[in-house]
Amino acid sequence: MESLMDVATPALHLDRERLKNNAQRLIGRAQQHGVGLRPHLKTLKSIDVARIAIAPRHGGLAAATMNEAHYFAGHGISDIQLAVCLSPTKFARAAEIQKLAPDFSFFVDSVEVAHAAAAFSRSEGLALNAWIEIESGGQRTGVLPQSAELLAIAQALDAGAHLAGVATHAGQSYGDNQIEQIVAIAEQERSSVVAAAERLRSAGFKVPGLSAGSTPTATHARSAAGLTEWRAGVYLAGDLYQVAIGSMALEDVALDVIASVISHRRERRLMVIDAGGLALSKDRSTAQLSGRDAGYGLVMDLYGRPTFGALHVRGVHQEHGEIHGVTDAQFDALPIGSRVRVVPNHACMTAAMYGEYLVTNGGVDIAARWPRTNGWD
Amino acid sequence: MESLMDVATPALHLDRERLKNNAQRLIGRAQQHGVGLRPHLKTLKSIDVARIAIAPRHGGLAAATMNEAHYFAGHGISDIQLAVCLSPTKFARAAEIQKLAPDFSFFVDSVEVAHAAAAFSRSEGLALNAWIEIESGGQRTGVLPQSAELLAIAQALDAGAHLAGVATHAGQSYGDNQIEQIVAIAEQERSSVVAAAERLRSAGFKVPGLSAGSTPTATHARSAAGLTEWRAGVYLAGDLYQVAIGSMALEDVALDVIASVISHRRERRLMVIDAGGLALSKDRSTAQLSGRDAGYGLVMDLYGRPTFGALHVRGVHQEHGEIHGVTDAQFDALPIGSRVRVVPNHACMTAAMYGEYLVTNGGVDIAARWPRTNGWD
Repeated sequence: MESLMDVATPALHLDRERLKNNAQRLIGRAQQHGVGLRPHLKTLKSIDVARIAIAPRHGGLAAATMNEAHYFAGHGISDIQLAVCLSPTKFARAAEIQKLAPDFSFFVDSVEVAHAAAAFSRSEGLALNAWIEIESGGQRTGVLPQSAELLAIAQALDAGAHLAGVATHAGQSYGDNQIEQIVAIAEQERSSVVAAAERLRSAGFKVPGLSAGSTPTATHARSAAGLTEWRAGVYLAGDLYQVAIGSMALEDVALDVIASVISHRRERRLMVIDAGGLALSKDRSTAQLSGRDAGYGLVMDLYGRPTFGALHVRGVHQEHGEIHGVTDAQFDALPIGSRVRVVPNHACMTAAMYGEYLVTNGGVDIAARWPRTNGWD
Repeated sequence: MESLMDVATPALHLDRERLKNNAQRLIGRAQQHGVGLRPHLKTLKSIDVARIAIAPRHGGLAAATMNEAHYFAGHGISDIQLAVCLSPTKFARAAEIQKLAPDFSFFVDSVEVAHAAAAFSRSEGLALNAWIEIESGGQRTGVLPQSAELLAIAQALDAGAHLAGVATHAGQSYGDNQIEQIVAIAEQERSSVVAAAERLRSAGFKVPGLSAGSTPTATHARSAAGLTEWRAGVYLAGDLYQVAIGSMALEDVALDVIASVISHRRERRLMVIDAGGLALSKDRSTAQLSGRDAGYGLVMDLYGRPTFGALHVRGVHQEHGEIHGVTDAQFDALPIGSRVRVVPNHACMTAAMYGEYLVTNGGVDIAARWPRTNGWD
C-alpha cells in the first residue's frame, strides 16, 4: 500500500475520517435548526468529497466557478448554485450547464443583468435560475434588502427568467471576531434575506429559496428561522484560520501538505522544507488575528501530531519553506529527508495548487487518490 | 480567430512580442559581459517559452521542481539545473530525469547529502551532477564560501558523484533596494561563487560551472568576471514588483490576467471583477515597497493601455476582485461584462494558477495557446 512516507513531496493530504466528521457535524446542526445545508465545494472541488458533504435532505451544493459547476453537473449533481454574480457574457455557458443540471442557478445583483437574463431565457427557450444577492454587511456584491433595486431586479427577472430566491454571504464573519460577534453576524445574514424575501412576497413574487451562510455563521448561528438553507464550505477541510476564529478544533482539520526537510542551517537555526509559496499558497490571513499569526502554516509530524511544539513556516520562496528558531533537538528529530505535515492558513488557497488528494483514514496509509478540478474554463 | 474579447474569464495572457524582447535583452546583456545565460523556467513552465528564452551559446535552463525538470527533459532539453537542494529520497527520480537529460543537475548544501549522492551514484552506475550551493546573503540554503563545509562537500561528492560547480542566488536582491544596492548585491553574488571556486580549485577540485543570479542582479550587474553563467527567470514575464524595483518598464511586462466586470456598486464606489485571490494569487510583495503598493494588481484596458489611470485591485475574495474608489466616468467606461487586463504583482505566483497561456502578438487576437506544466510529481 502506498504511504505518506514514500510519496513525492510536496503533496496534498486529506484525512477522510476527519472530513466525514466535519461534514456530519454541520449536517446534524442544520437538521437541529430545521434548515437545509448546501455545502460549498469551492474549497475541495472534488466529487468524492461532494458525495460525503451533500446533505441527504437537501441534495445540492454550491460552486464558485463555471469550471466547478460543469464538473459537478457532469458527475450527475442537478442542484448547483454558482454563488457569484455572472456577467451576461457567461449566460451561454450557464445554459449549457443547466442542460446537464436542471437546478443550476447563479447570483444577480443588478437590474441590467436581470434584464439580460430574462431576454436570454426568452430567446433560448429555457428559464435561467437566478438568486438575488443580498448585501448583509460583507460590502462586496449584493443589494440592500430595503433597496428599490431589489424589487426592480425581481421585476426584470420575471420577464423570462426564474427567481430562485434570495441569498447572502456575510464576508465580515471572517474577521477577528469573538463568538458573540459571529452570532450577531449570523443573525444579520438571516434577517437580511428574510427581510428581502418578505418585501418580495408582499410585492407578489414567489421566493422559493432563502440561502445564507459561511462556515463561522453556520457553526454559531442561534436561529435559522425563515431560511431554507445554510451555505458553507471551508468547514469540510478546516484550516488554521478557522481554528483561530473558533469554527473548529485543530484536531478536526482534515487537510495538510506533506513536505520533506531539504536543508539544515544550524548556524542560523533555520530548517528548510520543500513546500514554499506555491505548495502552501501565499495566504497570510492569520496575520490579521492578534496573537494568532501562524505564518504560512503549522508544522506537525507525519502522523499529524504536534510533536514539534509550535514550529511554523515563517518565510516562503517559490519552492522553499523556512522554519526559524529550530532547536538542536528539533534538528535531530527532523533530519534531511524526513517528512512533516504542514497545516495551512487557508484551505481554499492551498488546495487549489494541487490536482489530487492523497486520502488516508488517519495514519499514513494512502487509501485512495481523489482528483480535484481547478481553473475556470 | 479567437480573441481576448471572447474567451472565458479569468484567463492568463502572454504577449509574445514582449516576451521575445525581454528574452533578447538579457541574452544580449549576458553576451556583452561574456557570460552564459541560463533562463529559469520556474516562472513560465512552458517549452514554447523555453525555446524563446534559451541562449544559443548556452543551451540550458533552470527549473525549480522535479515536475518541471521532467517536463523539459521530455521535450529534449539536456542541460537542466534543478536550482534547489534535494533530499536523498529524490535521487531515484533525479536519476530517471538524468537518463533523459544527461546534463541534469541539482543543488546540495550538506556533507550528508553529498555523501548520499556519491553512494547513490556508485550503486546506480551513474554520476549525479551536483552544484554546491553558496550562501551570498540570501539567508536561505547554501554554505558560506569560507566554510569548512564547502571543501567537505566537494570531498564527499568526489567519491562517486560529479561536481557541476558552485551556484548562488542572492534572494535579498528582491528587497526594497536602490539600483546601486542591487549592483552591490550582484557583486556579492559574483564574488561569493568566485571565492568558493578558488578555494575548491586550490584544494585540487575541478569546478566547471560558476552560476549566479536573479532578475535584478543579472539586469544591473557591472561585472560577470569569473562566472560561467547568470541565472534569472521572472524577467521573461515581468510583473509589478520587477517594475517597482527597476528591473524593467511597465510596457515590458508580458503577462496579465484577462478579467470581466461582474458588479457595479456605485453607492460604495466599488467595481467587482471575476479575478480574485485564485486568479491573481494572494501575493502581496509590493506591499513592502514604500509608496508602490499595487494591491493585487494594476487594471489596464483590454489592449494593455493604462486607460483607467491608477485603478488597482485592492481586495480579493476567492473569486472576486475589488476595485475601490471608482469614478462615475470609470463605471461608464467599464460596464458589467466589459473586460480588463490585470497586471500582477508577482508573475511566478499568478501564472501557477493556470494550465495555459493565451498568446497574442500584442493586441487582442489569440495567435496560440501554450500549455504550461504545474505541480510537483
